[in-house]
Amino acid sequence: MIIGIASRPDDKRTLEYAKDLAVFIEGRGHEIILEESTAEKTGLGEGKPVEDIHADMIIVIGGDGTVLRTVRQMKTQIPILGINMGHVGFLSEIEPEEAKEVFEKIEKGKYTIEKRMRLALKVDGEYIGEALNEAVIVTSRPAKIIELTINIDYIPAERFRADGVLISTPTGSTGYAMSAGGPIVDPWIESFLIVPIAAYYLSSRPHVVSSRRRISVELDSSKPADLVIDGIYVTELYNGNVLSVEMSKEPALFVNAGRNFFAKVDKKLKRL
Amino acid sequence: MIIGIASRPDDKRTLEYAKDLAVFIEGRGHEIILEESTAEKTGLGEGKPVEDIHADMIIVIGGDGTVLRTVRQMKTQIPILGINMGHVGFLSEIEPEEAKEVFEKIEKGKYTIEKRMRLALKVDGEYIGEALNEAVIVTSRPAKIIELTINIDYIPAERFRADGVLISTPTGSTGYAMSAGGPIVDPWIESFLIVPIAAYYLSSRPHVVSSRRRISVELDSSKPADLVIDGIYVTELYNGNVLSVEMSKEPALFVNAGRNFFAKVDKKLKRL
Amino acid sequence: MIIGIASRPDDKRTLEYAKDLAVFIEGRGHEIILEESTAEKTGLGEGKPVEDIHADMIIVIGGDGTVLRTVRQMKTQIPILGINMGHVGFLSEIEPEEAKEVFEKIEKGKYTIEKRMRLALKVDGEYIGEALNEAVIVTSRPAKIIELTINIDYIPAERFRADGVLISTPTGSTGYAMSAGGPIVDPWIESFLIVPIAAYYLSSRPHVVSSRRRISVELDSSKPADLVIDGIYVTELYNGNVLSVEMSKEPALFVNAGRNFFAKVDKKLKRL
Amino acid sequence: MIIGIASRPDDKRTLEYAKDLAVFIEGRGHEIILEESTAEKTGLGEGKPVEDIHADMIIVIGGDGTVLRTVRQMKTQIPILGINMGHVGFLSEIEPEEAKEVFEKIEKGKYTIEKRMRLALKVDGEYIGEALNEAVIVTSRPAKIIELTINIDYIPAERFRADGVLISTPTGSTGYAMSAGGPIVDPWIESFLIVPIAAYYLSSRPHVVSSRRRISVELDSSKPADLVIDGIYVTELYNGNVLSVEMSKEPALFVNAGRNFFAKVDKKLKRL
Repeated sequence: MIIGIASRPDDKRTLEYAKDLAVFIEGRGHEIILEESTAEKTGLGEGKPVEDIHADMIIVIGGDGTVLRTVRQMKTQIPILGINMGHVGFLSEIEPEEAKEVFEKIEKGKYTIEKRMRLALKVDGEYIGEALNEAVIVTSRPAKIIELTINIDYIPAERFRADGVLISTPTGSTGYAMSAGGPIVDPWIESFLIVPIAAYYLSSRPHVVSSRRRISVELDSSKPADLVIDGIYVTELYNGNVLSVEMSKEPALFVNAGRNFFAKVDKKLKRL
Repeated sequence: MIIGIASRPDDKRTLEYAKDLAVFIEGRGHEIILEESTAEKTGLGEGKPVEDIHADMIIVIGGDGTVLRTVRQMKTQIPILGINMGHVGFLSEIEPEEAKEVFEKIEKGKYTIEKRMRLALKVDGEYIGEALNEAVIVTSRPAKIIELTINIDYIPAERFRADGVLISTPTGSTGYAMSAGGPIVDPWIESFLIVPIAAYYLSSRPHVVSSRRRISVELDSSKPADLVIDGIYVTELYNGNVLSVEMSKEPALFVNAGRNFFAKVDKKLKRL
Repeated sequence: MIIGIASRPDDKRTLEYAKDLAVFIEGRGHEIILEESTAEKTGLGEGKPVEDIHADMIIVIGGDGTVLRTVRQMKTQIPILGINMGHVGFLSEIEPEEAKEVFEKIEKGKYTIEKRMRLALKVDGEYIGEALNEAVIVTSRPAKIIELTINIDYIPAERFRADGVLISTPTGSTGYAMSAGGPIVDPWIESFLIVPIAAYYLSSRPHVVSSRRRISVELDSSKPADLVIDGIYVTELYNGNVLSVEMSKEPALFVNAGRNFFAKVDKKLKRL
Repeated sequence: MIIGIASRPDDKRTLEYAKDLAVFIEGRGHEIILEESTAEKTGLGEGKPVEDIHADMIIVIGGDGTVLRTVRQMKTQIPILGINMGHVGFLSEIEPEEAKEVFEKIEKGKYTIEKRMRLALKVDGEYIGEALNEAVIVTSRPAKIIELTINIDYIPAERFRADGVLISTPTGSTGYAMSAGGPIVDPWIESFLIVPIAAYYLSSRPHVVSSRRRISVELDSSKPADLVIDGIYVTELYNGNVLSVEMSKEPALFVNAGRNFFAKVDKKLKRL
């Protein structure tokens, strides 16, 4: 197989782990392509930008942030096998100590490729990117409430005053959405999870909406708001700006080496 | 058209309304079939048990309880048009004052039939019924905690101590599931909503699970529990009993005269 | 000192622990008075009913249930030192492995006596008992909603439809009240914590009310409800019955061997 | 009596109302002192800065923001009678249409003065102001989690990762604290309400802590945070900065014309 390897570049322990794993995999006769900063920091030769890596899968070593960044950098989605070096690591299939054993299963073909839907996002009709976890609209003035209208299928479904709102994928339901009070959503369900953040209206509840619907959020407020995608600040929004959300045509791909999603999540939740 | 009419039988105002509506519809040249207790209480002639009504649709006049009962009594599902005489009435499409106008739209064919998934339920492998809203397992000793294991695809996904748990359809997400802290789930999403009731473990969160999965709940507790389906007590469960949940092959059918689900829900939520 | 010892009587490990501790304490020259079933089950001679134990403190070995029962059985409150043999044990100051060390601190006078307020409860004006944790009114028909009116200082403050409501002391805030969504309340605050259980009205929130207020709860529902005090079923309530709640004149007393309440609670919460 | 009047200065309807009320009160033989911008905008002659108004009470006309600002501007606290021109107005005793009738009750002495505790706040030991509602520490990078340690009586009670945390008074419990999931706290209880904002740890719960305790919050995070007091941005906090919170020696004073606090709150909650 051709195996890409991308590591969190700023943590010594993680880089050492990446180096060790690369040697292990190469030793088993596979071709390794290192992501460029991983190559540089491990001293393992030359690497490539993520978008130029053509491989059967990419092993991503780090926390959820590393996985999100790698997915964002791919031009065409390649299956990811995440190794969790962070605290909880919902996006990572496996723990470092089991990686070699899992890799040997993968060599024998004992894995499936799981599709994880992403969001395709536009502001005022202009494409601004994809999200694997979530898009967040949040007041840019700390503790200053904003007003938002949520449209579902072009009809105002809800209007509320809040710190903000987030539109999450099922994958993102174990991320920020959970902190804001959302449920855990099965990645098999193509859906948008809409969660108000510190809503002032008590009738504002999390909604799980079919991906066949069209969602948009209008900022209806004299105060500006920040748009944050997968944890990265993207732009400021002003009164009347509309974020529209569809299911992306290109899902992210994850290697599933046989774990049950819910059993995994439950185990990780107990660490929180 | 052939129109069935079933009314809540114990409320004078509702029965008078039913009578008036029956006369109106008959006057427009349709055939009316009255549910038997509705016929008796309105004095409008003879009626039939719900399971013997063969009609293009059944108009159900009352609250959510009346709709749930009518669905349960049908042998083959017929489309329901609910008229809300109750407090909130999430299962009822229309308010009494707009019924005639909506009916005239329906006569012109301006409506769709919406499928609402139901749960097919078994205890220890034996079929016990269908649920349109939810199945609840709840301690039968007030305020005595029980222990439950939730299996998803035959693998233990979660184990918790709680007053109980409910497995809800999307339709049931605006019912008891909401009181227990669950999200609102789009009826377009075929899924099970699992919500712990007063869980003692803080990591116990609502889950939205694809209907392609198999769910079962095992009572793992020396204390007995009650099984309640759509608000009706069904049986007592004991240590080791397993409730298994699948998507029913026969969904309930509802007449949708053009309302947007989420706008409707939001309006009703504001009344709570 | 004169030291009472009361153990959970139905757990072998706990009884052996109790026996060992009794021998240890007696060996240090103190007089031991065993609670009668503890005496019987450990074979350590004769015991007395809790209400006849006159001692400087009672060491209670077990879970929260054992502590609640002992407090209920005392005619005059004696300070309790709880040793946690259960899962979490919010009412128990210390873990079994540190008991001897803590006892030696206590011998040197390094402890304080903490007062924990209790509730004095009446139904329709008739005294029915005291609660250290909480009084719960909960539907006696599983999953059948009841209606309740909460009066504060004789004025209706809130009316809601729910599975029930609980009135908790600060001590009870880490018990059932927490499962129902209540906050953690400092035992230094003399107050009533009112928490709706699975309320159908979204505006129903937990309330923390000064113990100088008078609280009453009226059942306003055709369906009956159960009254449960500190986990023990007491009586059934019917439409129009009123539970009234005051601060008891006799608080429970706990030995505090120097732990910070909040640090302790946080540690225990992490186990949930 | 000498009556101060302070109005929200940027709303025409409010100013007209203020003018009308000033004429009414003066016409009943009382001395009126207008706040300076209220005087200017209504054209009712000369006014004074709030801190120079010496009066028996100040009538504050506007929303909660106007009340918070007036309290902040007073050098010595004078009783406030709030007239609600805003949406909900938890800090305002009365609605505009009942103001004259209430004022006549007040003339007859039918009112009490209610003390509402405030927070005295320090950053790294240096006094920075008082809060009537709350102090908020919130990430200054949108959607970037910060780490915080809450100390109670100088002992770490809780450590969590969150968008932020707020320390609220009972008065503030119906404000931002409620949006973040906190309970309603009786203003008769001198206490601090600590509520995490979108906490990532599931064991993080709201705490109600006696005002006899000492609270401090340490920012323990490479990312900076904003400190916001009663909705006003005050300063940026960095890793290691400590906010300490005590009960202020000078409470705010409110005129209570006989309303029951909880009945009032419940009515207002229903509007949300």
